[in-house]
Amino acid sequence: MRRSQIFLKTRKEAPADEKASNAQLLIRAGYIHKDAAGVYALLPLGLKVVENIKQVVREEMNAIGGEELLMTTLQRKELWSKTERWDDKAVDIWFKTKLKNNSEVGLAWSHEEPISEMMSAFIASYRDLPAYVYQFQTKLRNEPRAKSGILRSREFIMKDLYSFSRDAKEHEAYYQRVIAAYHKIFKRLGLDDITYLTFASGEPFTQFSHEFQTILPAGEDVIYLDKVKKTAINEEVMSDEVIKQLGLDKNKLAKTTAAEVGNIFNFGTAKSQKLGLTYTDERGAEKAVALGSYGIGITRLMGVMAEHFADDKGLVWPALVAPFDVYLARLSDKKTVVEAADKAYSLLTDSGVSVLYDDRSARPGEMFADADLIGLPQRVVVSEQTIKKDSFELKSRQDPKVHLFKLDELAGALHA
Amino acid sequence: MRRSQIFLKTRKEAPADEKASNAQLLIRAGYIHKDAAGVYALLPLGLKVVENIKQVVREEMNAIGGEELLMTTLQRKELWSKTERWDDKAVDIWFKTKLKNNSEVGLAWSHEEPISEMMSAFIASYRDLPAYVYQFQTKLRNEPRAKSGILRSREFIMKDLYSFSRDAKEHEAYYQRVIAAYHKIFKRLGLDDITYLTFASGEPFTQFSHEFQTILPAGEDVIYLDKVKKTAINEEVMSDEVIKQLGLDKNKLAKTTAAEVGNIFNFGTAKSQKLGLTYTDERGAEKAVALGSYGIGITRLMGVMAEHFADDKGLVWPALVAPFDVYLARLSDKKTVVEAADKAYSLLTDSGVSVLYDDRSARPGEMFADADLIGLPQRVVVSEQTIKKDSFELKSRQDPKVHLFKLDELAGALHA
Repeated sequence: MRRSQIFLKTRKEAPADEKASNAQLLIRAGYIHKDAAGVYALLPLGLKVVENIKQVVREEMNAIGGEELLMTTLQRKELWSKTERWDDKAVDIWFKTKLKNNSEVGLAWSHEEPISEMMSAFIASYRDLPAYVYQFQTKLRNEPRAKSGILRSREFIMKDLYSFSRDAKEHEAYYQRVIAAYHKIFKRLGLDDITYLTFASGEPFTQFSHEFQTILPAGEDVIYLDKVKKTAINEEVMSDEVIKQLGLDKNKLAKTTAAEVGNIFNFGTAKSQKLGLTYTDERGAEKAVALGSYGIGITRLMGVMAEHFADDKGLVWPALVAPFDVYLARLSDKKTVVEAADKAYSLLTDSGVSVLYDDRSARPGEMFADADLIGLPQRVVVSEQTIKKDSFELKSRQDPKVHLFKLDELAGALHA
Repeated sequence: MRRSQIFLKTRKEAPADEKASNAQLLIRAGYIHKDAAGVYALLPLGLKVVENIKQVVREEMNAIGGEELLMTTLQRKELWSKTERWDDKAVDIWFKTKLKNNSEVGLAWSHEEPISEMMSAFIASYRDLPAYVYQFQTKLRNEPRAKSGILRSREFIMKDLYSFSRDAKEHEAYYQRVIAAYHKIFKRLGLDDITYLTFASGEPFTQFSHEFQTILPAGEDVIYLDKVKKTAINEEVMSDEVIKQLGLDKNKLAKTTAAEVGNIFNFGTAKSQKLGLTYTDERGAEKAVALGSYGIGITRLMGVMAEHFADDKGLVWPALVAPFDVYLARLSDKKTVVEAADKAYSLLTDSGVSVLYDDRSARPGEMFADADLIGLPQRVVVSEQTIKKDSFELKSRQDPKVHLFKLDELAGALHA
């Protein structure tokens, strides 16, 4: 993609009212646009990052038998009343609105209720179980304060997977498969060494739920972690008793701030019973379905990755999620330089490397600053100097060293 | 995908409260789930169809320089007040809700205002123009009656493209490119012979807007069409004067019902002026940006295609949007039959053919009925009879004739 054709502008300064460093960076680099407090649009580069993260998550959800679908935003009052979660006293982040006939409807902040109710139309017998479904959906949550950029916004994209199992044993086996899949996701995203399986409150269904917490100074959660055992406890359930129960040593726990990038819940059969989600077992007995729910905040993950990998020059994206592989900077409008840059652009694009080609007439310093701010993994420079050497300059975003390559070596060097 | 593993159940009957034939068919065949009047979830097969339609539209939007982004659902009152479209008297399908501080916010039924306001942060000079951006977004509209299934729902997926041009001439040239791109989209989807460019009301900005209307008995619009000139007039602007203005002959116009699958608007500069969307031209003068908006109802298109192509046995999807290419029916659990079917499944899948493999122990009649109802383009049957002939039976959904092929010919026959 040529910069002269893409809708992309970088800025020196983020809006004055934006205090969160993830949003400041992403706004300055042209990935997101702030529409209101806690409400951000995804610009073309931001949408690409989100789609890349979604694809990693999608692959791992499919690998454990998940099937993708898409539930609705509008929510019926009577459904959520059945589980006593309609009342604002029970759930304090509802957005609610009204149909023309004046009846109230809610806007989905979660899909546990509607998906469980829907499945009751599809699950009748033990032969219909287990079932695993997931979606990427925009959740709306009426957060009283939205001050952490895209780490906690009023509107955000979440992956939510739901498991429907015959009994506690089948549920538990799948729960462990999801934990393994989540570890794989965070490993692929380059976050595994700072992401911890964390014991958190499981109320009212179980003693614990599990969170995946990524260490981040700006994170909104506080966890106590054992780096060796790769286990953490959320402050909300921290106690001497819990430490003992989990076989941890209080003196080896480090207190740190973190961002919750994933969470998994075991609902047992309590919610199924309220929603009439039952099945007939092999012996003809009616049983409640065992229910699990497994979230990953997709846009939050983008914010976490933006903050975690950034340096003082700007964003630094891992290759898997970067919106393009290469920033190609053409430092002159001279014919020989333009021709060489166009050639490199075609050659790289044809070999499957995605390129953001800075074909503007801008100062080199401006181009380099933009390349650093936008944070693509590699930068290729074409200038009168490189032309004299019949070469192209290649530099990794994370490494100050510059390497010279001939045109026919360039794609190979980038794929290496 | 094996049917034993996919979350898919067909039904003999649609819910009693569902009157629209598109929704009845899609519910019975397991593509959508009705959550409430005008509110439908997309099940795995339905999501695949939607994604396939989106991909066709995306390719054609990218081909005319469109850049994909994603705006937000939550909308600020003060923004829509600037264009006098906040008031329920001006726009009667708003859903509105409140933040915790009691200030009102709207839920997006369109994105003309927010995208225009956002672009004012990116457009300063003539060098920043033209710009073309689009999105696939869930729109929420408080429809008083929702009785046409997914042809008019309270929550639906729309593609909306916006053009930002320097002047009327640049705008008009792009407007024509979009018309050509839309024709291409409807041609690829197999709807071109029944889809007409239709003159409709352009108020308050121009005399006419343009709609793309697809002839459909269940359509909610009435148009008058000239089949030879491939032009139509929406009933809402129909008059002797308009017929004359468009060079049509009243006696050659046929009245018919149709569904609006696309619409394009020329806003001129009126909206830009209200929203402060201006630029500095080559001579330093400040000018308002010329604005166009171009919609395609993605989920509505799924409904139109479901109704239009269906026969009395069920859905009939064109290959480009079908959720799978082939329905593979295994008519027996005998070892030889299972082995042959498994082999065909692997071979087809490996050769890039997507297969829904009915590996259940079901009666042949039930499998055939499901294959017809679900409407994949091709059906492959493996049975004791076909095994005896060392063959597989291949049948197109639209053709009663059955052909026998050897295993090594099968993929070739399907690609032909």
